[in-house]
Amino acid sequence: MGSPDVENLTAVLHKKDDLRLEVRPIPEPKDDEVLLRMTAVGICGSDVHYWTHGNIGHFVVKAPMVIGHESAGIVTKLGKNVTSLKVGDRVAVEPGVPCRRCDDCKRGEYNLCNDVVFCATPPDNGNLCRYYTHAADFCYKLPDHVSMEEGALLEPLSVGVQACKRGGVTLGSKVLITGAGPIGLVNLLVAKAMGASKVIMTDIVEHRLKVARDLGADFTVLIGKDKTSEELAKEVEETLGAKPDIAIDACGAESTIALNMLATRSGGKICIIGHGPAEVKVPIINAMTREIDVRGVFRYANCYPMALAMVASGNVNVKKLITHNYKLEQTLEAFETAKTGAGGAIKVMIHC
Amino acid sequence: MGSPDVENLTAVLHKKDDLRLEVRPIPEPKDDEVLLRMTAVGICGSDVHYWTHGNIGHFVVKAPMVIGHESAGIVTKLGKNVTSLKVGDRVAVEPGVPCRRCDDCKRGEYNLCNDVVFCATPPDNGNLCRYYTHAADFCYKLPDHVSMEEGALLEPLSVGVQACKRGGVTLGSKVLITGAGPIGLVNLLVAKAMGASKVIMTDIVEHRLKVARDLGADFTVLIGKDKTSEELAKEVEETLGAKPDIAIDACGAESTIALNMLATRSGGKICIIGHGPAEVKVPIINAMTREIDVRGVFRYANCYPMALAMVASGNVNVKKLITHNYKLEQTLEAFETAKTGAGGAIKVMIHC
Amino acid sequence: MGSPDVENLTAVLHKKDDLRLEVRPIPEPKDDEVLLRMTAVGICGSDVHYWTHGNIGHFVVKAPMVIGHESAGIVTKLGKNVTSLKVGDRVAVEPGVPCRRCDDCKRGEYNLCNDVVFCATPPDNGNLCRYYTHAADFCYKLPDHVSMEEGALLEPLSVGVQACKRGGVTLGSKVLITGAGPIGLVNLLVAKAMGASKVIMTDIVEHRLKVARDLGADFTVLIGKDKTSEELAKEVEETLGAKPDIAIDACGAESTIALNMLATRSGGKICIIGHGPAEVKVPIINAMTREIDVRGVFRYANCYPMALAMVASGNVNVKKLITHNYKLEQTLEAFETAKTGAGGAIKVMIHC
Amino acid sequence: MGSPDVENLTAVLHKKDDLRLEVRPIPEPKDDEVLLRMTAVGICGSDVHYWTHGNIGHFVVKAPMVIGHESAGIVTKLGKNVTSLKVGDRVAVEPGVPCRRCDDCKRGEYNLCNDVVFCATPPDNGNLCRYYTHAADFCYKLPDHVSMEEGALLEPLSVGVQACKRGGVTLGSKVLITGAGPIGLVNLLVAKAMGASKVIMTDIVEHRLKVARDLGADFTVLIGKDKTSEELAKEVEETLGAKPDIAIDACGAESTIALNMLATRSGGKICIIGHGPAEVKVPIINAMTREIDVRGVFRYANCYPMALAMVASGNVNVKKLITHNYKLEQTLEAFETAKTGAGGAIKVMIHC
Repeated sequence: MGSPDVENLTAVLHKKDDLRLEVRPIPEPKDDEVLLRMTAVGICGSDVHYWTHGNIGHFVVKAPMVIGHESAGIVTKLGKNVTSLKVGDRVAVEPGVPCRRCDDCKRGEYNLCNDVVFCATPPDNGNLCRYYTHAADFCYKLPDHVSMEEGALLEPLSVGVQACKRGGVTLGSKVLITGAGPIGLVNLLVAKAMGASKVIMTDIVEHRLKVARDLGADFTVLIGKDKTSEELAKEVEETLGAKPDIAIDACGAESTIALNMLATRSGGKICIIGHGPAEVKVPIINAMTREIDVRGVFRYANCYPMALAMVASGNVNVKKLITHNYKLEQTLEAFETAKTGAGGAIKVMIHC
Repeated sequence: MGSPDVENLTAVLHKKDDLRLEVRPIPEPKDDEVLLRMTAVGICGSDVHYWTHGNIGHFVVKAPMVIGHESAGIVTKLGKNVTSLKVGDRVAVEPGVPCRRCDDCKRGEYNLCNDVVFCATPPDNGNLCRYYTHAADFCYKLPDHVSMEEGALLEPLSVGVQACKRGGVTLGSKVLITGAGPIGLVNLLVAKAMGASKVIMTDIVEHRLKVARDLGADFTVLIGKDKTSEELAKEVEETLGAKPDIAIDACGAESTIALNMLATRSGGKICIIGHGPAEVKVPIINAMTREIDVRGVFRYANCYPMALAMVASGNVNVKKLITHNYKLEQTLEAFETAKTGAGGAIKVMIHC
Repeated sequence: MGSPDVENLTAVLHKKDDLRLEVRPIPEPKDDEVLLRMTAVGICGSDVHYWTHGNIGHFVVKAPMVIGHESAGIVTKLGKNVTSLKVGDRVAVEPGVPCRRCDDCKRGEYNLCNDVVFCATPPDNGNLCRYYTHAADFCYKLPDHVSMEEGALLEPLSVGVQACKRGGVTLGSKVLITGAGPIGLVNLLVAKAMGASKVIMTDIVEHRLKVARDLGADFTVLIGKDKTSEELAKEVEETLGAKPDIAIDACGAESTIALNMLATRSGGKICIIGHGPAEVKVPIINAMTREIDVRGVFRYANCYPMALAMVASGNVNVKKLITHNYKLEQTLEAFETAKTGAGGAIKVMIHC
Repeated sequence: MGSPDVENLTAVLHKKDDLRLEVRPIPEPKDDEVLLRMTAVGICGSDVHYWTHGNIGHFVVKAPMVIGHESAGIVTKLGKNVTSLKVGDRVAVEPGVPCRRCDDCKRGEYNLCNDVVFCATPPDNGNLCRYYTHAADFCYKLPDHVSMEEGALLEPLSVGVQACKRGGVTLGSKVLITGAGPIGLVNLLVAKAMGASKVIMTDIVEHRLKVARDLGADFTVLIGKDKTSEELAKEVEETLGAKPDIAIDACGAESTIALNMLATRSGGKICIIGHGPAEVKVPIINAMTREIDVRGVFRYANCYPMALAMVASGNVNVKKLITHNYKLEQTLEAFETAKTGAGGAIKVMIHC
């Protein structure tokens, strides 16, 4: 094996519980692609889920798949059509490249494209590796003062941007976020950056709520096991001083969806990000007779520029989300930390 | 008892199963009101429900309440501030008068006003009577060629307008409507008037689907008891030739909500009008991960002018909805017909 | 010269006033393209303008350019990636193929793409010829009952769809259209199909207004030379019975823009389609202090499916727009007719 | 004359150049009104303009009119229907009370109401006085930590909220603001609070641009007399590094409107707040063929809660806008300062 700099060490998920580091060939960029020297890749809950379960819903790991999709890298080679980037540019990688030809793509809702190639969603390879090629127009040049780790964080931040956009968060919005894991927290940061006046967050773990408060949550509510959705909705209203205008569900659980449906004000919006059980029993008629919109959120479209603008502004300290750092060679250890949440892990970052 | 013309014969629901005709005083219009000589009042499913159950959800008939809210009348006296109408004007009555002062009213979402006075929703009196006073600005002057019965139909048509507006129905929309009762049918008429290219309707009763086809539905699907939501969603897609862009639920049943969530295309809209059980078990995560918006519909705001424009255009034959006609003195008989649906009753109209 | 069926007779604009028929090679479709046997191509005002002026604004004919962009054809060969169409499919051709990679494309506003290749806009070739290749996803399969000529008309109809969408035309809208040429007339048809209750049209030529009335305009106002914009705005309001909600400018003239700014109701929308002088002197502050939106319209995005749905519905008789028909060999004669408007020409169609 | 506390000293504009302090009776609140003890009233450019010109457009001072409309006060008496406030509440006063009955009011666009009563717009009295009655629902309770002066500033801030809302300012927006007077500056503050990433401002006075930079403008461009709109548009693009997404015109001048039309990106939005000449000569076709929306802004609707949330958040230091303070007795001196801008006056505040 040669120098690590010229080898493409790659984290490959062969099947459930079988994640390996392998050396793979360095790929050649196609005409509209760039070759990237990857530098920072964050671990997402979905990465861990593929590792521990071998699937998410009907997406099943049937063949070895490179893991990783929250990433940033340095341009090392240009495909022949590429003029928007140059060698040496530091870029964040938007991991889904859509077909560009279907109705969804033409409408600008490219996140709904059925033929998207999305990093580390079976059967598509991810980019937790040294060298990786990607469509140049889905690479976003980072300003000098934005770090590669922040670049990698644009991926989860974009989920927050999509949810807050879909929910219509703006100046003065009162926002409820159910779930204070990484996705709940990026929504907190984005909602505040969009001018939300008050954000109230719920979780079943007090430690997570403490992190939420540190990151700017105005109020938190610990979800006790013995409380009904009605009681919790009332507690949210009393704590916030009003029913929230917008609720963002970062869990996908029956109980949080139910809470959001009861807690949100008439005419408000609920955004549901989280994946969850195939069927849930929820008080949707209550929400419907109060003309609430319940809006799905799936990944993101046209959000990277907004997430980057937010980070580049310096007004939002996203680095606080990164609690652990590992080298590519320590990938398994990094995944173990992300899985167990040991040491208060929020976001685990791997440096390639 | 004097002449029927000068007496205010009034249909009063005293309690469950106790609907009586009484003579009440002729009211005086307040400064911003008009006195109306009522001429046509349609019977709504909610009227029947109050009669047969004594409540709808937490709205309970605790004191005698005048029934009726789908109505039209003739202006017979003006409050002192009224300049927008004159004696003799034939008007449709929008039955809910909001507070005009809350946030919802100021935002133009006056249908969400908590302090609305809404005809025949306890404890507010309706207008199935001879003389009735109403806020002048919620009375809409009918052109000469629009009949009083059509004026009364603006109320259910406005529900269709609100749902189709909320769903974004426009030129070329492919629309699924679950439920072919009066509310489903008005949605059919409105969707077509807004340019929907294809409307597919479902019901559990074949006769209703035949009426739907007569009124312009392009396709119908009879809901068999033994079919799953997945099977029905597939049948809708195959019959329509595509997944619908917009689904309008005119039932509120668990099964129709589930069908809509599975059948609608990614990025589409579902509007739920119907009232239903407090909790339903539905595949909402399927809809959410396809970024569908599930939008509640409650009554209507700013819809009467659109409904009137539609009727006045002459392009839509709404009179077909009226299957039965009764005099005010025959109110009980009319309600009996509306309850049983005898003779293929869709809309029962009472002439005052 | 061989058989017309196997030769690619092509209408080439060499420069101002120099339009020639030439035989060109039959092109090969690229991987994502289809080869079309063109069947119907309409002449647009812009085609005539390039012919008579050699430019439109900064788009200048510097090299020989195939003319024509309102077209339909039959698929005769598939590029190797094409699965959405098959040989023999009859299709309408959306003439602009965008880059699919810029921010505008990703947002779904592909009509704003700076790198679009648009038929018969210099330096891009059009498709008034026998054989032509085009991106498969910008070819729309026509149902059997929609003719090729109607397919070609989808192009100007899409301009109307874009304008009416941008203006928010819906059920009950009262619409003013200034200019009763082909673009004004397609807006009339689309506005009605979207549910507009009343359409009032203006022009300086009475004959055109007669055509507008035949096609469904509710009111028309002949623009006299001696009338001020204020007087005309008042005449529109008195004729329509209200200020219009939406105005669509199909001229681009200073006088019509001024009229629209004064005539439209507070909070209304003005869409300006027409090209016109670089600077115009207009009462924009009047419109601004009444919170009118003045919205630009440039070509169309995501409109062909709506235009096709409208034509396929059979509710709109677009064929009335076609007043003259010519063979490809008669191209010069056809352009002459389109230029002079002889015989009341609205839309001149060339059959290839 | 008695104690100042129990007398209603009032600033009355009799006619052009004739502003007097008079003692007027203390009014009684109507049923839905409150009596306020005014505490802080800012001077607006329009106040000065009525004083120096006797009119703004067709609004002419024909009878003595109390001046002032940017105000806050303390509730001292309640009308009999008022339950939303209590005596002693500190409130900001939204100065326009609409009719609540017209189509505009019902749609939520109450700023467009033709029958609005608006403080200090002839013939309606303002509130630069000691005691004043106002509709309770247009009084907004201030939290303890928000000062009366900040409460008075909610009025100009609401103009900024309306413009930024109409322009769609959100996270990452790049915004051009032409004019760095008070209205330009409040737009700067609001745009930043909504997440704008970069704000570039122009003015003809360098001192104002310095203030803009102090308040957070990222870039400024001094408008030289000899530069064309094209040159300035290019300078804006080069300085900002991109064409702005949104332009806000806080001048209403022909030159700034022209600049905004050329500078804004395709598909962007221009909001025009400023009043200006009846007709302007502008390159609107350039903007229209790039599908820019030019949106009017007139006062505000539903903006006070957002402006209050912004101030209450503590993230925005609006107090910097207040450069001068006077007592009610010094009203003429205060107006003189506001007129001349002596001492770098931005906002002059009068304490009652």
